[in-house]
This record gives sequence, C-alpha cells and structure tokens, in this order.
Amino acid sequence: MALKRIQVGERMSQVVVHGNTVYTAGQVAQGAPGASASDQTRDILSRIDGLLSEAGTDKSQLISATIWLSDISTFNEMNEVWDAWVMPGDTPTRACVESKLAAPQFTVEIAVIAALG
Amino acid sequence: MALKRIQVGERMSQVVVHGNTVYTAGQVAQGAPGASASDQTRDILSRIDGLLSEAGTDKSQLISATIWLSDISTFNEMNEVWDAWVMPGDTPTRACVESKLAAPQFTVEIAVIAALG
Amino acid sequence: MALKRIQVGERMSQVVVHGNTVYTAGQVAQGAPGASASDQTRDILSRIDGLLSEAGTDKSQLISATIWLSDISTFNEMNEVWDAWVMPGDTPTRACVESKLAAPQFTVEIAVIAALG
Repeated sequence: MALKRIQVGERMSQVVVHGNTVYTAGQVAQGAPGASASDQTRDILSRIDGLLSEAGTDKSQLISATIWLSDISTFNEMNEVWDAWVMPGDTPTRACVESKLAAPQFTVEIAVIAALG
Repeated sequence: MALKRIQVGERMSQVVVHGNTVYTAGQVAQGAPGASASDQTRDILSRIDGLLSEAGTDKSQLISATIWLSDISTFNEMNEVWDAWVMPGDTPTRACVESKLAAPQFTVEIAVIAALG
Repeated sequence: MALKRIQVGERMSQVVVHGNTVYTAGQVAQGAPGASASDQTRDILSRIDGLLSEAGTDKSQLISATIWLSDISTFNEMNEVWDAWVMPGDTPTRACVESKLAAPQFTVEIAVIAALG
C-alpha cells in the first residue's frame, strides 16, 4: 500500500493518501493574509476543496477536521463560513481550539482527513 | 467503503466510521459546564463511552486521544480521572496540550480515534 | 485486525498500530529537558525514529505530523532540525501551532502517523 504524496515540499507535503484515507496539511489563508477570519476561512476551505480534488475526492467524503484559531473570539465568524461550506448530512467530526499560529497574518488554520470516494 | 456518520449535525458529526476506524468529534462536558476539571473529564469520558458504543466498539479498542485543557495546571486533576478510565494493557497513544476552548464554561476537550472491535 | 500496542503504560501507549497505520503518542524531549528548541527537537525526532523502528517502519513512511511549540517564536529553530530530518520526496503532511505543554521544561511536542512499509 504505497503512499501517494501531493504537492511535496522540503518541509511537508500538502496531501498524503494512505490506502483509502486522505490527510491534508494544516492550511492557512495564503490567498488572504491579514484578512478577517471569515475571509481567511473562505480562502482555506477553497484551498481544501482543491487539495481533495487533486487527491480524487471531495468534501462529501470528509472524516474529520481540526481547526485552530489564534483568537477564539472569532469562533462564530469562522463557523458561519464553515456551516455554509459543509454538506448537509455529510459533516465530519471536528475539534476547534485556540492556538497561536506560525505567522501573525494567519489567524485560522484547518487540517482535514477524508476518504477516497 | 462508505462512511457511517453518527449524530449528524449541521456543523459536525459526533462520530464518523471509516472502514475499521472510528473518529469522534472533540467532546466537551455538556453535562457539567463550569464544573471542575475532574467533573468535566468524567462527563466527557462517559460521553465517549456512549459514542464508541453507538459505533459498535468500546474503550478497549482506543487507538489515540487528543486532550486540550484551557489551563494546563489542571493536568494532574484530569489525569486522575483519565488513569482510572483507561483499560490496563489497552491504553491509546495520547497528546495533551493547553488551548483555550470555544466557550469559557468548558475547560477540557477530548477527541479519540478507536478501532472497530 | 487486532491492535498492536508498544511501550504500554498505565496512562498511554507510546505507539499503537492499527492495520497498516502507526500512531505515536506526543513525544517530548525526555533526554533534553530544559534544553533549546533545537536540542529538544533533535531528541524528539530521534525518539520518533526509535518508535517507528519498533513498529517495523521508518520516517520514509510518514503520513502526518502535529507539532506543538510552547512558544511559536521558536518556529524557525525547530524547522531547521525538522527540515534536516525529513526525507526529500517523502515529507508528511504537517500542522504546527502554539500550545503550552504539560511541563514547563518541555517546549516542543511532536506526534506522528506513519504507514507500515
């Protein structure tokens, strides 16, 4: 059962597929640094859509998500975008906690695990 | 290998089963908001027992656990309850770190991965 | 598909193998408490090499890593050691965030998931 790696960098890969399980790296809003938590969440979820697609799956196959907010007071703002993005009936498990992130311009980070469809 | 989702909400599912692997959402002490770290841990672990049971497994099949404490000084208090709950010889891997949680009345959050027995 | 547990303690196991997937507990620098983030990272990664070896695999099979730093300002210092350790072309997915850890002498914690080779 060989591993399939996607967008392989020197520090990390953006996706690793192991059997029928797809893992993404923690995604930050590289298209919206310094933007609001809503806009960062939108950028990240669109990035995750792209990674899942490259891996041959999509958000209907989400298993779990971990969300880190650098300021937990943006919880509701992030959730509005999240709730609109997930598919009714196909929501993953989730944990969301507060942690500072690697760079201050990024205030939201999301990593997911999904199944191959 | 279809995903089986349990307690499916609009934001998240409380459990997703993928093949032989069971993932729970991060659990907080909805039965003991504002209580001590011990009491919150007890409430959460009983909640996890229930979710594992709904999924068709139990704590002897735990693979891994992630524990977030909003105040790491409650580490020993949480551990006392944890140590009494896990099954000798069948302990999962674990990571426990400090992170503020979504609501201040919750000071402990635990997510687990388990196998179908 | 029985679980294989390695270094089983009363609180946690250091490794659990489920099918072809290997999970490690969050590792701290028990060989370098209070040392610099570089030295702690080196100690942890060598510890992870040992655990993967006990499980019958190695770092070329890494799927994902979660890294917690008690002070995110040590991000670059940790990365220097990390970047030298991972295998070109075989990097895992990764998330790295700031969280205080269980004991103040430990400032870096790393947990990984890997495949059996």
